Amino acid sequence: MTHSPALIGIDWGTTSLRAWAIAADGQVLETRRRDLGILRVPGGDFPAAFAECVGDWHSLGLPVLMSGMIGSRQGWAEAAYVPCPADTASLAAHLLRPPGTERVWIVPGLSLSDGARRDVMRGEETQIAGVVGEDGSATVVLPGTHSKWVRVEGGRITDFATFMTGELFDVLAKHSILGRLMTGDAPSDAGFRQGLDVARSGDGGLSGALFSVRALGLFGDVPADALRDYLSGLLIGHELREALARFPASEVLLIGAASLAQRYETALQAAGVGVKCEGESAAVKGLSGIAARAGLLKDARP
Amino acid sequence: MTHSPALIGIDWGTTSLRAWAIAADGQVLETRRRDLGILRVPGGDFPAAFAECVGDWHSLGLPVLMSGMIGSRQGWAEAAYVPCPADTASLAAHLLRPPGTERVWIVPGLSLSDGARRDVMRGEETQIAGVVGEDGSATVVLPGTHSKWVRVEGGRITDFATFMTGELFDVLAKHSILGRLMTGDAPSDAGFRQGLDVARSGDGGLSGALFSVRALGLFGDVPADALRDYLSGLLIGHELREALARFPASEVLLIGAASLAQRYETALQAAGVGVKCEGESAAVKGLSGIAARAGLLKDARP
Repeated sequence: MTHSPALIGIDWGTTSLRAWAIAADGQVLETRRRDLGILRVPGGDFPAAFAECVGDWHSLGLPVLMSGMIGSRQGWAEAAYVPCPADTASLAAHLLRPPGTERVWIVPGLSLSDGARRDVMRGEETQIAGVVGEDGSATVVLPGTHSKWVRVEGGRITDFATFMTGELFDVLAKHSILGRLMTGDAPSDAGFRQGLDVARSGDGGLSGALFSVRALGLFGDVPADALRDYLSGLLIGHELREALARFPASEVLLIGAASLAQRYETALQAAGVGVKCEGESAAVKGLSGIAARAGLLKDARP
Repeated sequence: MTHSPALIGIDWGTTSLRAWAIAADGQVLETRRRDLGILRVPGGDFPAAFAECVGDWHSLGLPVLMSGMIGSRQGWAEAAYVPCPADTASLAAHLLRPPGTERVWIVPGLSLSDGARRDVMRGEETQIAGVVGEDGSATVVLPGTHSKWVRVEGGRITDFATFMTGELFDVLAKHSILGRLMTGDAPSDAGFRQGLDVARSGDGGLSGALFSVRALGLFGDVPADALRDYLSGLLIGHELREALARFPASEVLLIGAASLAQRYETALQAAGVGVKCEGESAAVKGLSGIAARAGLLKDARP
């Protein structure tokens, strides 16, 4: 019976969701993926989307633990942010049960309030819980639409910061004058590295550096088909400059999908920072760990 | 006859154009404005748009001097950038005549190439020529979609930098998650000043500061109807931090339309920088001065 499912884990984000049937030892028995992110659920009917995706598993009596934007104001039910510092035990102590459900819990997000600084995360806390361990220390980087840099000390998340790198890239390439000169979408490693170099060697900030995408393009210093990756390198390079000033580290733990993680690995190595990579299994590990800590696992109950 | 027209001046930008009938002493005798910016001219037929707007004046035998994006690759004819340092004489020496025209000239833009730095301007060089004088020195700020900070020494533009502040505001408010929580469009002076304060007191850069718009909004630290101006203050504040590090100044000359210039004046004063304001007549003065230097003025010729 070791490998019968003990938990349904769901990472339910803005654009998509992934669901796993997980054994008591953390092994994934089955994976499902849907393009039913919280902003794409027809009519905001989360119970219906839930039933379509994992209703058969849930009817077997399995507990469900969800993380991500499903616990936000725009999601199924709002799970109040837990203030930092926080660890797996704090997360397990503040699970939210959506009204009208049975055996369904949501992991809360985390908030930071430090002087004038305010920041929030949802979903990343679960991935971090999955890879850092109950007493580990690390600087964790989670690249994405909203990249997170997170300081973990003795298993507790003590500080973090959000960089809008992915979304900036997206809106600038699509909607600003910087996209006008860009051609093609083949990757350009040379363009990416040139952007990193300008970010690292420049003495100014991001606001003044962005227009270089247009000026270098007009003069042909960066070919039109390399401008997209030049902008990517420039933005990631500035994120690293700012983030490493706040979170100095000789090595970071990198969590993310392969292609984006590869870019960050290149950038971090160019900045002299060692990298340990974790794949997308971080969410599964985190959901298992938090569920175990909260006593939710089916096999763990009498 | 002092006040018969001696020159047609046109400031022809991306979204609109302004044309003036100007006397030899620089006085404006008539003003016309059209929403016929270079990206809005039907079929790119610049001669037709020109004829519709100022054909009657031109047929009187008056010379025409144009500045702005009309001289760009997307405009009527491309006037090659003149490298900095440059002054009124350099601009007058490099006027471009669009093929097939009579008595029509275009003021070239300026380029900067300083180490890895590349930058360009078109139109601002004419406004600056109009307000600084042939041997003046100043730090000039021209707020806008692409704000320019310009160092002028002894009448020569020696250095400049572009900040994409206006365009960043626009794409972030319209197309990013930061716009989601914003309500209303009444101005909020308190929100604007809060953004300036965060930019000035923060120890990080812009990339890490942007997400504060969402975090502060979620926690109600900035009311939803003040978030738009908070973002404006944050972006202008970061521009000032970066720009003043590169162009240290105890006083600047500010050229721009009233409402935006007012924001910059507030921000500069909060940063302890004195401000002298110049209105939109700068372009007229610049076109007159460059035309006089190039010997184009009708009354100045035999």
